[in-house]
Amino acid sequence: MTDVTIWNEFRHEREDDDVAAVYPDGIHETIADALGDGDREYDVRTATLDEPDHGLPDEVLEETDVLLWWGHEAHDEVADEVVDRVQQRVLEGMGLLVLHSGHFSKPFKRLMGTSCDLQWREDGGTERLWVVDPGHPIVDGIDEYIELPETEMYGEPFDVPEPDRLIFTSWFEGGEVFRSGCCYRRGNGRIFYFRPGHETYPIYENEDVRQVLRNAVEWASPTGGSPRTFGHRE
Amino acid sequence: MTDVTIWNEFRHEREDDDVAAVYPDGIHETIADALGDGDREYDVRTATLDEPDHGLPDEVLEETDVLLWWGHEAHDEVADEVVDRVQQRVLEGMGLLVLHSGHFSKPFKRLMGTSCDLQWREDGGTERLWVVDPGHPIVDGIDEYIELPETEMYGEPFDVPEPDRLIFTSWFEGGEVFRSGCCYRRGNGRIFYFRPGHETYPIYENEDVRQVLRNAVEWASPTGGSPRTFGHRE
Amino acid sequence: MTDVTIWNEFRHEREDDDVAAVYPDGIHETIADALGDGDREYDVRTATLDEPDHGLPDEVLEETDVLLWWGHEAHDEVADEVVDRVQQRVLEGMGLLVLHSGHFSKPFKRLMGTSCDLQWREDGGTERLWVVDPGHPIVDGIDEYIELPETEMYGEPFDVPEPDRLIFTSWFEGGEVFRSGCCYRRGNGRIFYFRPGHETYPIYENEDVRQVLRNAVEWASPTGGSPRTFGHRE
Amino acid sequence: MTDVTIWNEFRHEREDDDVAAVYPDGIHETIADALGDGDREYDVRTATLDEPDHGLPDEVLEETDVLLWWGHEAHDEVADEVVDRVQQRVLEGMGLLVLHSGHFSKPFKRLMGTSCDLQWREDGGTERLWVVDPGHPIVDGIDEYIELPETEMYGEPFDVPEPDRLIFTSWFEGGEVFRSGCCYRRGNGRIFYFRPGHETYPIYENEDVRQVLRNAVEWASPTGGSPRTFGHRE
Repeated sequence: MTDVTIWNEFRHEREDDDVAAVYPDGIHETIADALGDGDREYDVRTATLDEPDHGLPDEVLEETDVLLWWGHEAHDEVADEVVDRVQQRVLEGMGLLVLHSGHFSKPFKRLMGTSCDLQWREDGGTERLWVVDPGHPIVDGIDEYIELPETEMYGEPFDVPEPDRLIFTSWFEGGEVFRSGCCYRRGNGRIFYFRPGHETYPIYENEDVRQVLRNAVEWASPTGGSPRTFGHRE
Repeated sequence: MTDVTIWNEFRHEREDDDVAAVYPDGIHETIADALGDGDREYDVRTATLDEPDHGLPDEVLEETDVLLWWGHEAHDEVADEVVDRVQQRVLEGMGLLVLHSGHFSKPFKRLMGTSCDLQWREDGGTERLWVVDPGHPIVDGIDEYIELPETEMYGEPFDVPEPDRLIFTSWFEGGEVFRSGCCYRRGNGRIFYFRPGHETYPIYENEDVRQVLRNAVEWASPTGGSPRTFGHRE
Repeated sequence: MTDVTIWNEFRHEREDDDVAAVYPDGIHETIADALGDGDREYDVRTATLDEPDHGLPDEVLEETDVLLWWGHEAHDEVADEVVDRVQQRVLEGMGLLVLHSGHFSKPFKRLMGTSCDLQWREDGGTERLWVVDPGHPIVDGIDEYIELPETEMYGEPFDVPEPDRLIFTSWFEGGEVFRSGCCYRRGNGRIFYFRPGHETYPIYENEDVRQVLRNAVEWASPTGGSPRTFGHRE
Repeated sequence: MTDVTIWNEFRHEREDDDVAAVYPDGIHETIADALGDGDREYDVRTATLDEPDHGLPDEVLEETDVLLWWGHEAHDEVADEVVDRVQQRVLEGMGLLVLHSGHFSKPFKRLMGTSCDLQWREDGGTERLWVVDPGHPIVDGIDEYIELPETEMYGEPFDVPEPDRLIFTSWFEGGEVFRSGCCYRRGNGRIFYFRPGHETYPIYENEDVRQVLRNAVEWASPTGGSPRTFGHRE
């Protein structure tokens, strides 16, 4: 069975009543629910910033097939040693789903090598995530676009490496566009950046978003592959 | 000096007064003007469908460094032998800029290997072409987006191979997005698909669009390269 | 169950005793055996050039999830209508594995848009196919390289579009290299070009080659995806 | 005029007589000579590890259009603040050529996000760098391959992101292959990894290698581009 770890900063929900109203048990629990909705079963655990080792000691990462990452206001508090381990595990084959404001998280910036910066505006406008790659397994069961009635805007330029595969491009009511679903491979690991997920909108209750999360976990799961043998060769 | 050939179907302008009012000498002449506006000089010729060999006999293609292609209602009238030669010349290194409804032209479909289909609506709405690759020479001198107040809409999915490099993504007032500036290499040749250019809107009078055309001609010009040697090897 | 159709030109085996000695029932039957060796079951049929419609009438292609293609001396005898249907089915999602001299087949050239030319020498030297993408499912269970003691050489340049993903690179005893395992997506379809398979060497008896064929069928199988809706939009 | 800075660790040449015999003034001076050989003129400066700020204070990096990087035994002594500045400058548009053992340098690992590990053997065998992308400006004037009679071997897998464009693939006498010329874009900056250059072989005296270095400096030079505007948007 695929072992999934959902990492959440889990600060907004405890500090801000508006956020707590949307995600009373924390964003991680709502995402865990989403993964449980589909036909496939996962062994899901959660981990949060204020746990020892941020809930990600070696033994947890060793057993994790796919890691989901949501962070926003406390990116800098994530210890570099944990970032090192996450990077190492991705190169070995662990999948990584980076959500929304996680674009600025340490693990994502480390793996991308760029600033991962973008434009943004908190205007509560409509977003449409258009499928630009209808043949990709991440969009199985999704119609030609996902519509989110109220979101924060993220706009281009998005300072990431050209995606290996661009899956979604967002249209925003206010006039902007954004590459909102981006696939990467780094080492043996599959990485998917997926934009939806602001803390004050119930984005992770949206059925299409939940479907994409399930599809992406499946897509990012490690395959067997061939040996990664480095160093001196006889 | 770079030798540029601007190919235009040149039917709408002769058949339809509304189009003739916008492009009295033909779209090709307006594009030729655009290329003459910049600091660089080109040796520009034009060619149209109803000329012998569509204005593209071997000797013209042999001397062409960059070919621009605008077509719409008469794609099927382009002879396959001419398409063969255009393809061959692109593989040898000739640049090719495919404009607007040229997405359905025979040379573009031949070189892409896909249907090149898309969604469309003629609604006269606003388009914003956002720069998603600000480091690319095709956007030299362009601000963060190009705004066209009235255009036809083209929407995703756009059935082309994943671009080698995505330069522009369009936002449309009506709610759609489109990958509107796409770079490809095929053989030694550079190909740029650029969406703007409907026949009933004066798109090729727009200063930013003209700047992109000049930049793209420069980008698509052949470089020296290394031998393309095929066949039996001793 | 995945429906697989193995297409073989099936001329060499009937015309040349040396080839018949290696592949007495035809290359297609040996490949069919290879697909039967693994843990997964496929519904396998074969088709050959000299059958009506080359064994690929509409109803066969409609039911095919993954098509394998081996051709060499009679590429030109493949009817364009069949090539049209194969291309259309790939764009709809059918997987396509193109083997060895199939690099010059009409379906592959159609889908690539390039000449697909290369250098070659029939010298019976050793080939090592190095895995350059150890995290890809096509190399599950393969060691760091596959060694083939006697093969025909294919050398660079290989006139194909830059692969979406390069899986194998071959080293040849005579001093050449070749991108020998190349993944592409066109429309919803997955395409894998895999070099091994000369008609006078028993390449398809090699266990690693057989494993790659099985992995590639799995990888190329269609996924559900999202609608491919084109044309006029309200 | 293009401002080029050649950075060299410059330790081997001062510590090891064999290296000093090959590069008496340091690898950086030999590379500087190579850049001076062509038709184009550059404003070249050099910088080495043991200078203050490793010879790369802010004002030098600010004025640098293209930075070349050679390092081997002292990667860890490069200060993280200098790595930060190099990364920042690349994202802004500075070109970066990473040479040979520079694959393990901090700036390259930072920008790639992977381990950049590989296999190696110091056997003095022959290497052939095959051109796999004959249409790229980096191979202008290069024949179908570059042959180096004595080199250290680097073999796959090479743990880097899939190159945006693969230019060279090396064949080694001992039986290995390697992606030896790899292009990347990160932010507005162009990065070229080029394998040749071991300290005990006179690789940088080879005319073809020198030609590639000149071509690559030209290719990596910044273009004007479009604004990189990030942050809150009105």
